[in-house]
Amino acid sequence: MRILLTGASGFVGGAVLRALSQRGVETVALSRRAPTVAEDYVWRDVDLMQPPAVAAALNAIRPDAIIHLAWIVEHGAFWTSATNLDWITASCRLALSGRAAGVQRFVGVGTCFEYDCTASHICREDGTPLRPTLLYGVSKDAARRVLSALALSHDFEFAWARLFFLYGPGENPRRLVPSIARALAAGQLAECSAGRAVRDYMDVRDAAEALVALALSPITGAVNIGSGEGNSVRRIVQILGRVAGRSELLRVGALPDREGEPARIVADITRLRDEVGHRTGRPLEDGLAEAFVYWSEAARAAR
Amino acid sequence: MRILLTGASGFVGGAVLRALSQRGVETVALSRRAPTVAEDYVWRDVDLMQPPAVAAALNAIRPDAIIHLAWIVEHGAFWTSATNLDWITASCRLALSGRAAGVQRFVGVGTCFEYDCTASHICREDGTPLRPTLLYGVSKDAARRVLSALALSHDFEFAWARLFFLYGPGENPRRLVPSIARALAAGQLAECSAGRAVRDYMDVRDAAEALVALALSPITGAVNIGSGEGNSVRRIVQILGRVAGRSELLRVGALPDREGEPARIVADITRLRDEVGHRTGRPLEDGLAEAFVYWSEAARAAR
Repeated sequence: MRILLTGASGFVGGAVLRALSQRGVETVALSRRAPTVAEDYVWRDVDLMQPPAVAAALNAIRPDAIIHLAWIVEHGAFWTSATNLDWITASCRLALSGRAAGVQRFVGVGTCFEYDCTASHICREDGTPLRPTLLYGVSKDAARRVLSALALSHDFEFAWARLFFLYGPGENPRRLVPSIARALAAGQLAECSAGRAVRDYMDVRDAAEALVALALSPITGAVNIGSGEGNSVRRIVQILGRVAGRSELLRVGALPDREGEPARIVADITRLRDEVGHRTGRPLEDGLAEAFVYWSEAARAAR
Repeated sequence: MRILLTGASGFVGGAVLRALSQRGVETVALSRRAPTVAEDYVWRDVDLMQPPAVAAALNAIRPDAIIHLAWIVEHGAFWTSATNLDWITASCRLALSGRAAGVQRFVGVGTCFEYDCTASHICREDGTPLRPTLLYGVSKDAARRVLSALALSHDFEFAWARLFFLYGPGENPRRLVPSIARALAAGQLAECSAGRAVRDYMDVRDAAEALVALALSPITGAVNIGSGEGNSVRRIVQILGRVAGRSELLRVGALPDREGEPARIVADITRLRDEVGHRTGRPLEDGLAEAFVYWSEAARAAR
């Protein structure tokens, strides 16, 4: 079993590369920047926006399956960047090139933002309406639709992993968990909004294991990758204060709430648990404690 | 009012160029091949797969609206060609470049093959489920979804003209009407299937007028462009035999039926008629009689 992994140099990619390596899966990492994790894999420098180069690489690698993580992920910008448009076609071209090179299974990565999160208490793959609004979710949804059709017409298995909220090693330091953890580690005030929004947060390493389990399973279609538990952002921040022993530095409510955000985005993980057979990951408290240690050490190392 | 027209060198494009000219609309035609109709317009040789060139052209032209016809149309191949994938992104990039250059309105062109034609007696924009199967329809559907989102986020008007079955001057000679007309004009046997399938056939010149009416209207969303009338393929062929005065050359049923084709694909044209205000085009018999004359003369000219 040989897996081709795109986006291997990213936040999720690094964790997936490690999870594949730990399972002993032969892996070829495709990315423009070299992956940063020290595992056993082959790296190829390929630009997925260059279809001829992609086709040549696939014919040389001849993987059995593809886990396709690459997409625009630039912090903040990815929500509305026109680069999302390029990734629709690039992702579909990748699947076709892969199929032509013998690929049997393609696992793409979507997002909870494909769902109309205001419509359900919990997002279900077969029940919650799809109504993405920002270009990121719209483009992911379009890619999924076309990939589904290609899977039928070109006879390969297609699964679509919808990721919810992730934190953990390698996360962009400007996001919620790192920014709070770094402030606390530095003994600085940690400001955040009132944090009433309820989200499904999961350690990226658990998400990576779920993704790999999905890739190695025969399950097709959309599969939520989440913890299945909703926690308010306020609670996330309070746990970080507690594990840091610096709750007094928290300033919950100091920043304004973001307008127009769904009150609740939580994954139904029935498919992941019962069909893919993935067991639950680490408890939120443990993951956040590890994240705090990670960001504390990163801050010390940077000094 | 200045309109930018893509795909101007094609079958529909030529008719739209003429309809725009007849209405006195200032038109810039964008295509890689020069348009063949002799009307009053400016032609620019631009490859829509080159976003920087498209952006530069749009900034120079500064149109008020875009009618975007360009897409892969290669006879037979377009149904499943991977080039459909490139047109999703190219179409969306065109809309964004247009918006950045001041475009207020974008009219894209879809297809009746976006609909699940087995689900309804007649295809309605707001009632018939969308379930494209071949890559052509899937890609058009994906483009429409992303363009709709871009129209909201970037504040421009977006209409999506779903074309049904067209015939008329400039059609690919291998398609139904030209191939029957040419055989009859040459005094040869005209073979076809049993022709039980019912389709909505429209003269391309009437479709072009409807498209231009839509472009000049403020109507947004999907709008069917069709005659609203269903006729069996057998009846189309029989009319051609009659107008040619050569019904004895028809061999209906000589070719096998295509498998898996929907029994009926007919447009509900309520939106086109009542909202866009487009009046019905020429009767089928008149259009087919003109088509027969056109193909007879084309055959004579080629001798």
